Amino acid sequence: MLRSKKQGKEIARFKMTKERHGKTMLKAIADGKADKQVIPLLKSIASAKDFFTSSSCSGRIILLKLDAKGSKAESAFIERWHKQVKFGEFMKAVRNAKGNEIWLKLDPFILHVGTNSLENARRILKVMQGAGVKRGGIASAKGGKFIVEMIGTQAISLPVKSRGKMLVESGYLKWLLAKANKKLSANYAHLKRLQNEFERELE
Amino acid sequence: MLRSKKQGKEIARFKMTKERHGKTMLKAIADGKADKQVIPLLKSIASAKDFFTSSSCSGRIILLKLDAKGSKAESAFIERWHKQVKFGEFMKAVRNAKGNEIWLKLDPFILHVGTNSLENARRILKVMQGAGVKRGGIASAKGGKFIVEMIGTQAISLPVKSRGKMLVESGYLKWLLAKANKKLSANYAHLKRLQNEFERELE
Repeated sequence: MLRSKKQGKEIARFKMTKERHGKTMLKAIADGKADKQVIPLLKSIASAKDFFTSSSCSGRIILLKLDAKGSKAESAFIERWHKQVKFGEFMKAVRNAKGNEIWLKLDPFILHVGTNSLENARRILKVMQGAGVKRGGIASAKGGKFIVEMIGTQAISLPVKSRGKMLVESGYLKWLLAKANKKLSANYAHLKRLQNEFERELE
Repeated sequence: MLRSKKQGKEIARFKMTKERHGKTMLKAIADGKADKQVIPLLKSIASAKDFFTSSSCSGRIILLKLDAKGSKAESAFIERWHKQVKFGEFMKAVRNAKGNEIWLKLDPFILHVGTNSLENARRILKVMQGAGVKRGGIASAKGGKFIVEMIGTQAISLPVKSRGKMLVESGYLKWLLAKANKKLSANYAHLKRLQNEFERELE
Protein backbone atom coordinates (compact mmCIF):
# COMPACT_ATOMS: atom_id res chain seq x y z
CA MET A 1 0.00 0.00 0.00
CA LEU A 2 1.27 3.43 -0.92
CA ARG A 3 1.27 5.92 1.91
CA SER A 4 1.44 9.68 1.75
CA LYS A 5 3.91 11.53 3.99
CA LYS A 6 0.95 12.82 6.05
CA GLN A 7 -0.39 9.29 6.53
CA GLY A 8 3.03 8.05 7.57
CA LYS A 9 3.26 10.78 10.19
CA GLU A 10 -0.23 10.01 11.48
CA ILE A 11 0.63 6.30 11.81
CA ALA A 12 3.79 7.07 13.78
CA ARG A 13 1.92 9.54 15.98
CA PHE A 14 -0.87 7.02 16.65
CA LYS A 15 1.68 4.38 17.67
CA MET A 16 3.22 6.81 20.15
CA THR A 17 -0.19 7.82 21.54
CA LYS A 18 -1.18 4.16 21.99
CA GLU A 19 2.10 3.39 23.76
CA ARG A 20 1.78 6.40 26.05
CA HIS A 21 -1.80 5.51 27.05
CA GLY A 22 -0.76 1.87 27.49
CA LYS A 23 1.98 2.87 29.94
CA THR A 24 -0.37 5.23 31.84
CA MET A 25 -2.87 2.38 32.11
CA LEU A 26 -0.32 -0.16 33.39
CA LYS A 27 0.94 2.36 35.95
CA ALA A 28 -2.63 3.10 37.14
CA ILE A 29 -3.25 -0.65 37.54
CA ALA A 30 0.07 -1.15 39.39
CA ASP A 31 -0.71 1.80 41.68
CA GLY A 32 -4.19 0.44 42.43
CA LYS A 33 -5.75 3.52 40.83
CA ALA A 34 -7.70 1.69 38.10
CA ASP A 35 -11.20 0.46 39.00
CA LYS A 36 -11.05 -3.33 39.36
CA GLN A 37 -14.20 -4.03 37.32
CA VAL A 38 -12.88 -2.27 34.23
CA ILE A 39 -9.32 -3.69 34.17
CA PRO A 40 -10.04 -6.81 32.04
CA LEU A 41 -11.75 -4.63 29.43
CA LEU A 42 -8.89 -2.09 29.43
CA LYS A 43 -6.37 -4.89 28.95
CA SER A 44 -8.36 -6.47 26.11
CA ILE A 45 -8.50 -3.18 24.25
CA ALA A 46 -4.83 -2.33 24.90
CA SER A 47 -3.77 -5.69 23.44
CA ALA A 48 -5.43 -4.87 20.09
CA LYS A 49 -3.10 -3.22 17.60
CA ASP A 50 -5.31 -0.34 16.49
CA PHE A 51 -6.97 0.57 19.80
CA PHE A 52 -6.21 2.12 23.16
CA THR A 53 -8.15 3.43 26.15
CA SER A 54 -7.71 6.84 27.70
CA SER A 55 -9.72 7.91 30.78
CA SER A 56 -12.33 5.55 32.14
CA CYS A 57 -14.49 4.92 35.19
CA SER A 58 -16.22 1.63 35.95
CA GLY A 59 -19.23 3.31 37.55
CA ARG A 60 -19.60 4.36 41.16
CA ILE A 61 -21.67 5.53 44.08
CA ILE A 62 -20.57 8.99 45.21
CA LEU A 63 -21.22 11.68 47.76
CA LEU A 64 -20.68 15.06 46.19
CA LYS A 65 -20.45 18.48 47.78
CA LEU A 66 -21.95 21.35 45.80
CA ASP A 67 -21.24 24.98 46.49
CA ALA A 68 -24.01 27.61 46.64
CA LYS A 69 -23.94 27.95 42.84
CA GLY A 70 -24.56 24.23 42.34
CA SER A 71 -21.43 23.75 40.27
CA LYS A 72 -19.34 20.59 40.52
CA ALA A 73 -15.58 20.30 40.90
CA GLU A 74 -13.34 17.26 41.21
CA SER A 75 -12.27 18.55 44.63
CA ALA A 76 -15.89 18.41 45.77
CA PHE A 77 -15.96 14.60 46.01
CA ILE A 78 -16.59 13.53 49.59
CA GLU A 79 -16.62 9.80 48.96
CA ARG A 80 -16.32 7.55 45.91
CA TRP A 81 -17.18 3.84 46.04
CA HIS A 82 -16.46 1.65 43.03
CA LYS A 83 -18.17 -1.29 44.71
CA GLN A 84 -21.19 -2.16 46.84
CA VAL A 85 -21.40 0.05 49.95
CA LYS A 86 -22.66 -1.05 53.36
CA PHE A 87 -25.29 1.21 54.91
CA GLY A 88 -23.27 1.87 58.07
CA GLU A 89 -20.25 3.06 56.10
CA PHE A 90 -22.45 5.16 53.85
CA MET A 91 -24.31 6.86 56.71
CA LYS A 92 -21.09 7.61 58.53
CA ALA A 93 -19.86 9.46 55.43
CA VAL A 94 -23.18 11.30 55.06
CA ARG A 95 -23.17 12.34 58.73
CA ASN A 96 -19.58 13.59 58.51
CA ALA A 97 -20.16 15.42 55.23
CA LYS A 98 -19.88 19.18 55.53
CA GLY A 99 -20.87 21.72 52.90
CA ASN A 100 -23.66 23.76 51.39
CA GLU A 101 -25.33 20.79 49.72
CA ILE A 102 -24.54 17.06 49.69
CA TRP A 103 -25.74 14.91 46.77
CA LEU A 104 -25.90 11.13 46.46
CA LYS A 105 -25.19 9.96 42.94
CA LEU A 106 -24.90 6.69 41.13
CA ASP A 107 -22.76 7.32 38.05
CA PRO A 108 -22.68 4.71 35.26
CA PHE A 109 -19.43 3.59 33.60
CA ILE A 110 -17.70 5.95 31.20
CA LEU A 111 -15.07 4.70 28.83
CA HIS A 112 -12.95 6.38 26.15
CA VAL A 113 -11.53 4.21 23.41
CA GLY A 114 -9.08 5.62 20.88
CA THR A 115 -8.40 4.35 17.41
CA ASN A 116 -6.70 5.33 14.15
CA SER A 117 -9.38 5.47 11.45
CA LEU A 118 -13.05 6.18 10.87
CA GLU A 119 -13.41 2.53 9.84
CA ASN A 120 -12.14 1.33 13.22
CA ALA A 121 -14.23 3.96 15.05
CA ARG A 122 -17.24 2.46 13.25
CA ARG A 123 -16.25 -0.96 14.60
CA ILE A 124 -16.38 0.47 18.14
CA LEU A 125 -19.84 1.96 17.46
CA LYS A 126 -20.88 -1.52 16.28
CA VAL A 127 -19.55 -3.05 19.51
CA MET A 128 -21.51 -0.47 21.55
CA GLN A 129 -24.66 -1.28 19.66
CA GLY A 130 -24.10 -5.01 20.09
CA ALA A 131 -23.63 -4.55 23.83
CA GLY A 132 -26.71 -2.34 24.18
CA VAL A 133 -24.74 0.79 25.14
CA LYS A 134 -27.05 3.61 24.10
CA ARG A 135 -25.10 6.70 25.19
CA GLY A 136 -21.94 7.93 23.51
CA GLY A 137 -20.27 8.17 20.14
CA ILE A 138 -17.17 9.51 18.39
CA ALA A 139 -16.46 12.49 20.65
CA SER A 140 -13.31 13.60 18.86
CA ALA A 141 -12.04 13.05 15.30
CA LYS A 142 -8.79 14.86 14.68
CA GLY A 143 -6.32 13.88 12.00
CA GLY A 144 -5.62 10.16 12.42
CA LYS A 145 -7.04 9.91 15.94
CA PHE A 146 -10.63 9.04 16.84
CA ILE A 147 -11.92 8.90 20.43
CA VAL A 148 -15.15 7.04 21.10
CA GLU A 149 -16.97 7.73 24.36
CA MET A 150 -19.25 5.10 25.89
CA ILE A 151 -21.58 5.73 28.83
CA GLY A 152 -23.84 3.34 30.75
CA THR A 153 -27.43 4.22 31.61
CA GLN A 154 -27.95 3.49 35.31
CA ALA A 155 -28.44 6.70 37.30
CA ILE A 156 -29.55 8.14 40.62
CA SER A 157 -29.03 11.77 41.57
CA LEU A 158 -30.51 13.66 44.52
CA PRO A 159 -29.59 16.05 47.34
CA VAL A 160 -29.61 14.33 50.74
CA LYS A 161 -28.29 17.03 53.06
CA SER A 162 -28.33 20.81 53.07
CA ARG A 163 -26.28 23.05 55.37
CA GLY A 164 -25.82 20.27 57.89
CA LYS A 165 -29.46 19.21 57.92
CA MET A 166 -30.65 15.81 56.63
CA LEU A 167 -33.25 16.23 53.86
CA VAL A 168 -34.60 12.68 53.76
CA GLU A 169 -35.17 9.97 56.35
CA SER A 170 -32.59 7.36 57.15
CA GLY A 171 -35.07 4.57 56.25
CA TYR A 172 -35.39 6.03 52.75
CA LEU A 173 -31.60 6.25 52.37
CA LYS A 174 -31.23 2.61 53.43
CA TRP A 175 -33.78 1.52 50.86
CA LEU A 176 -32.26 3.78 48.19
CA LEU A 177 -28.70 2.61 48.87
CA ALA A 178 -29.82 -1.00 48.37
CA LYS A 179 -31.24 0.13 45.04
CA ALA A 180 -28.02 1.97 44.16
CA ASN A 181 -25.98 -1.15 45.00
CA LYS A 182 -28.24 -3.20 42.75
CA LYS A 183 -27.93 -0.69 39.92
CA LEU A 184 -24.15 -0.72 40.35
CA SER A 185 -24.17 -4.51 39.90
CA ALA A 186 -26.28 -4.14 36.76
CA ASN A 187 -23.80 -1.52 35.55
CA TYR A 188 -20.85 -3.88 36.08
CA ALA A 189 -22.73 -6.67 34.30
CA HIS A 190 -23.23 -4.27 31.38
CA LEU A 191 -19.50 -3.49 31.38
CA LYS A 192 -18.78 -7.24 31.23
CA ARG A 193 -21.14 -7.55 28.27
CA LEU A 194 -19.27 -4.69 26.57
CA GLN A 195 -15.99 -6.52 27.21
CA ASN A 196 -17.32 -9.74 25.64
CA GLU A 197 -18.57 -7.81 22.63
CA PHE A 198 -15.18 -6.10 22.23
CA GLU A 199 -13.30 -9.38 22.44
CA ARG A 200 -15.58 -10.91 19.81
CA GLU A 201 -15.01 -7.96 17.46
CA LEU A 202 -11.25 -7.71 18.02
CA GLU A 203 -10.30 -11.39 17.93
CA MET B 1 -15.23 17.80 -9.07
CA LEU B 2 -15.43 14.24 -10.30
CA ARG B 3 -17.90 12.07 -8.45
CA SER B 4 -18.08 8.30 -8.33
CA LYS B 5 -21.43 6.58 -8.90
CA LYS B 6 -21.48 5.67 -5.19
CA GLN B 7 -20.91 9.29 -4.15
CA GLY B 8 -23.66 10.46 -6.50
CA LYS B 9 -26.06 7.98 -4.92
CA GLU B 10 -25.07 9.05 -1.40
CA ILE B 11 -25.65 12.71 -2.26
CA ALA B 12 -29.11 11.97 -3.65
CA ARG B 13 -29.94 9.82 -0.64
CA PHE B 14 -28.78 12.53 1.79
CA LYS B 15 -30.97 15.12 0.06
CA MET B 16 -33.99 12.84 0.42
CA THR B 17 -33.21 12.13 4.09
CA LYS B 18 -32.85 15.84 4.83
CA GLU B 19 -36.14 16.60 3.08
CA ARG B 20 -37.95 13.84 4.92
CA HIS B 21 -36.68 14.99 8.33
CA GLY B 22 -37.48 18.60 7.41
CA LYS B 23 -41.09 17.66 6.65
CA THR B 24 -41.41 15.61 9.86
CA MET B 25 -40.08 18.58 11.81
CA LEU B 26 -42.46 21.11 10.24
CA LYS B 27 -45.39 18.77 10.88
CA ALA B 28 -44.34 18.31 14.53
CA ILE B 29 -44.16 22.10 14.93
CA ALA B 30 -47.54 22.60 13.22
CA ASP B 31 -49.12 19.89 15.42
CA GLY B 32 -47.67 21.49 18.57
CA LYS B 33 -45.60 18.36 19.22
CA ALA B 34 -42.17 20.02 19.12
CA ASP B 35 -40.83 21.48 22.37
CA LYS B 36 -41.03 25.27 22.11
CA GLN B 37 -37.54 25.93 23.48
CA VAL B 38 -35.84 23.85 20.81
CA ILE B 39 -37.77 25.11 17.73
CA PRO B 40 -35.47 28.06 16.81
CA LEU B 41 -32.45 25.73 16.93
CA LEU B 42 -34.22 23.07 14.82
CA LYS B 43 -35.14 25.70 12.23
CA SER B 44 -31.59 27.10 12.11
CA ILE B 45 -30.15 23.67 11.44
CA ALA B 46 -32.82 22.72 8.91
CA SER B 47 -32.08 25.88 6.91
CA ALA B 48 -28.42 24.87 6.43
CA LYS B 49 -27.81 22.90 3.23
CA ASP B 50 -25.77 20.04 4.66
CA PHE B 51 -27.54 19.49 7.99
CA PHE B 52 -30.80 18.21 9.42
CA THR B 53 -32.19 17.26 12.83
CA SER B 54 -33.87 13.99 13.65
CA SER B 55 -35.29 13.28 17.13
CA SER B 56 -34.80 15.87 19.83
CA CYS B 57 -36.02 16.85 23.28
CA SER B 58 -35.51 20.28 24.84
CA GLY B 59 -35.16 18.89 28.36
CA ARG B 60 -37.96 18.16 30.80
CA ILE B 61 -39.21 17.34 34.26
CA ILE B 62 -40.92 13.95 34.30
CA LEU B 63 -42.76 11.52 36.51
CA LEU B 64 -41.93 8.00 35.47
CA LYS B 65 -43.54 4.71 36.48
CA LEU B 66 -41.19 1.75 36.84
CA ASP B 67 -42.32 -1.84 36.97
CA ALA B 68 -40.99 -4.31 39.55
CA LYS B 69 -37.95 -5.00 37.35
CA GLY B 70 -37.01 -1.33 37.25
CA SER B 71 -37.09 -1.16 33.48
CA LYS B 72 -38.35 1.91 31.66
CA ALA B 73 -40.80 2.04 28.78
CA GLU B 74 -42.18 5.00 26.85
CA SER B 75 -45.64 3.97 28.04
CA ALA B 76 -44.50 4.40 31.63
CA PHE B 77 -44.48 8.20 31.48
CA ILE B 78 -47.00 9.61 33.94
CA GLU B 79 -46.30 13.29 33.30
CA ARG B 80 -43.86 15.25 31.12
CA TRP B 81 -43.32 18.98 31.56
CA HIS B 82 -41.17 20.87 29.07
CA LYS B 83 -41.43 24.02 31.17
CA GLN B 84 -41.40 25.20 34.79
CA VAL B 85 -43.92 23.29 36.91
CA LYS B 86 -45.95 24.73 39.80
CA PHE B 87 -45.79 22.74 43.02
CA GLY B 88 -49.59 22.28 43.20
CA GLU B 89 -49.76 20.78 39.72
CA PHE B 90 -46.75 18.59 40.42
CA MET B 91 -48.09 17.23 43.72
CA LYS B 92 -51.48 16.49 42.17
CA ALA B 93 -49.71 14.34 39.55
CA VAL B 94 -47.61 12.62 42.24
CA ARG B 95 -50.65 11.89 44.39
CA ASN B 96 -52.59 10.47 41.43
CA ALA B 97 -49.64 8.40 40.20
CA LYS B 98 -50.23 4.66 40.46
CA GLY B 99 -47.62 1.93 40.01
CA ASN B 100 -44.88 -0.08 41.63
CA GLU B 101 -42.43 2.82 41.78
CA ILE B 102 -42.69 6.48 40.79
CA TRP B 103 -39.51 8.43 39.94
CA LEU B 104 -38.99 12.16 39.57
CA LYS B 105 -36.46 12.99 36.88
CA LEU B 106 -35.00 16.07 35.35
CA ASP B 107 -33.73 15.09 31.89
CA PRO B 108 -31.37 17.44 30.01
CA PHE B 109 -31.83 18.26 26.30
CA ILE B 110 -30.95 15.63 23.74
CA LEU B 111 -30.48 16.56 20.12
CA HIS B 112 -29.58 14.55 17.01
CA VAL B 113 -28.05 16.41 14.10
CA GLY B 114 -27.44 14.66 10.79
CA THR B 115 -24.94 15.60 8.14
CA ASN B 116 -23.31 14.25 5.00
CA SER B 117 -19.56 14.01 5.66
CA LEU B 118 -17.00 13.42 8.39
CA GLU B 119 -15.79 16.97 7.79
CA ASN B 120 -19.25 18.40 8.56
CA ALA B 121 -19.65 16.05 11.54
CA ARG B 122 -16.39 17.52 12.86
CA ARG B 123 -17.89 20.99 12.52
CA ILE B 124 -20.78 19.88 14.75
CA LEU B 125 -18.31 18.51 17.32
CA LYS B 126 -16.60 21.90 17.21
CA VAL B 127 -19.93 23.65 17.82
CA MET B 128 -20.59 21.35 20.81
CA GLN B 129 -17.20 22.13 22.26
CA GLY B 130 -17.69 25.85 21.71
CA ALA B 131 -21.05 25.72 23.49
CA GLY B 132 -19.67 23.68 26.40
CA VAL B 133 -21.73 20.56 25.61
CA LYS B 134 -19.70 17.75 27.16
CA ARG B 135 -21.84 14.70 26.45
CA GLY B 136 -22.34 13.17 23.02
CA GLY B 137 -20.54 12.58 19.75
CA ILE B 138 -20.96 10.94 16.35
CA ALA B 139 -23.35 8.14 17.30
CA SER B 140 -23.73 6.74 13.80
CA ALA B 141 -21.53 6.92 10.70
CA LYS B 142 -22.98 4.91 7.85
CA GLY B 143 -22.16 5.54 4.22
CA GLY B 144 -22.71 9.24 3.55
CA LYS B 145 -24.77 9.87 6.69
CA PHE B 146 -23.40 10.98 10.06
CA ILE B 147 -25.59 11.49 13.14
CA VAL B 148 -24.20 13.55 16.01
CA GLU B 149 -25.85 13.24 19.40
CA MET B 150 -25.69 16.09 21.93
CA ILE B 151 -26.80 15.82 25.54
CA GLY B 152 -26.97 18.46 28.28
CA THR B 153 -25.67 17.82 31.78
CA GLN B 154 -28.35 18.89 34.22
CA ALA B 155 -29.85 15.88 36.05
CA ILE B 156 -32.00 14.81 38.98
CA SER B 157 -33.24 11.24 39.40
CA LEU B 158 -34.89 9.69 42.45
CA PRO B 159 -37.82 7.50 43.51
CA VAL B 160 -40.53 9.52 45.30
CA LYS B 161 -43.31 6.96 45.77
CA SER B 162 -43.46 3.20 46.15
CA ARG B 163 -46.61 1.09 45.99
CA GLY B 164 -48.81 4.05 46.77
CA LYS B 165 -46.71 5.27 49.70
CA MET B 166 -44.80 8.59 49.64
CA LEU B 167 -41.07 8.05 50.24
CA VAL B 168 -40.07 11.64 50.96
CA GLU B 169 -41.72 14.59 52.67
CA SER B 170 -43.76 17.14 50.77
CA GLY B 171 -41.46 19.95 52.05
CA TYR B 172 -38.45 18.21 50.46
CA LEU B 173 -40.35 17.79 47.17
CA LYS B 174 -41.27 21.47 47.15
CA TRP B 175 -37.62 22.47 47.68
CA LEU B 176 -36.43 19.92 45.11
CA LEU B 177 -38.98 20.96 42.49
CA ALA B 178 -37.77 24.58 42.80
CA LYS B 179 -34.27 23.22 42.18
CA ALA B 180 -35.49 21.17 39.20
CA ASN B 181 -37.20 24.26 37.74
CA LYS B 182 -33.97 26.22 38.13
CA LYS B 183 -31.94 23.46 36.48
CA LEU B 184 -34.46 23.34 33.64
CA SER B 185 -33.91 27.09 33.07
CA ALA B 186 -30.15 26.55 33.05
CA ASN B 187 -30.69 23.71 30.56
CA TYR B 188 -32.71 25.98 28.25
CA ALA B 189 -30.04 28.68 28.52
CA HIS B 190 -27.48 26.06 27.48
CA LEU B 191 -29.65 25.11 24.50
CA LYS B 192 -29.78 28.79 23.50
CA ARG B 193 -25.98 28.97 23.71
CA LEU B 194 -25.80 25.89 21.48
CA GLN B 195 -28.11 27.61 18.98
CA ASN B 196 -25.91 30.75 18.90
CA GLU B 197 -22.83 28.61 18.38
CA PHE B 198 -24.51 26.72 15.52
CA GLU B 199 -25.62 29.92 13.83
CA ARG B 200 -22.09 31.33 14.05
CA GLU B 201 -20.63 28.15 12.50
CA LEU B 202 -23.25 27.76 9.78
CA GLU B 203 -23.55 31.37 8.60
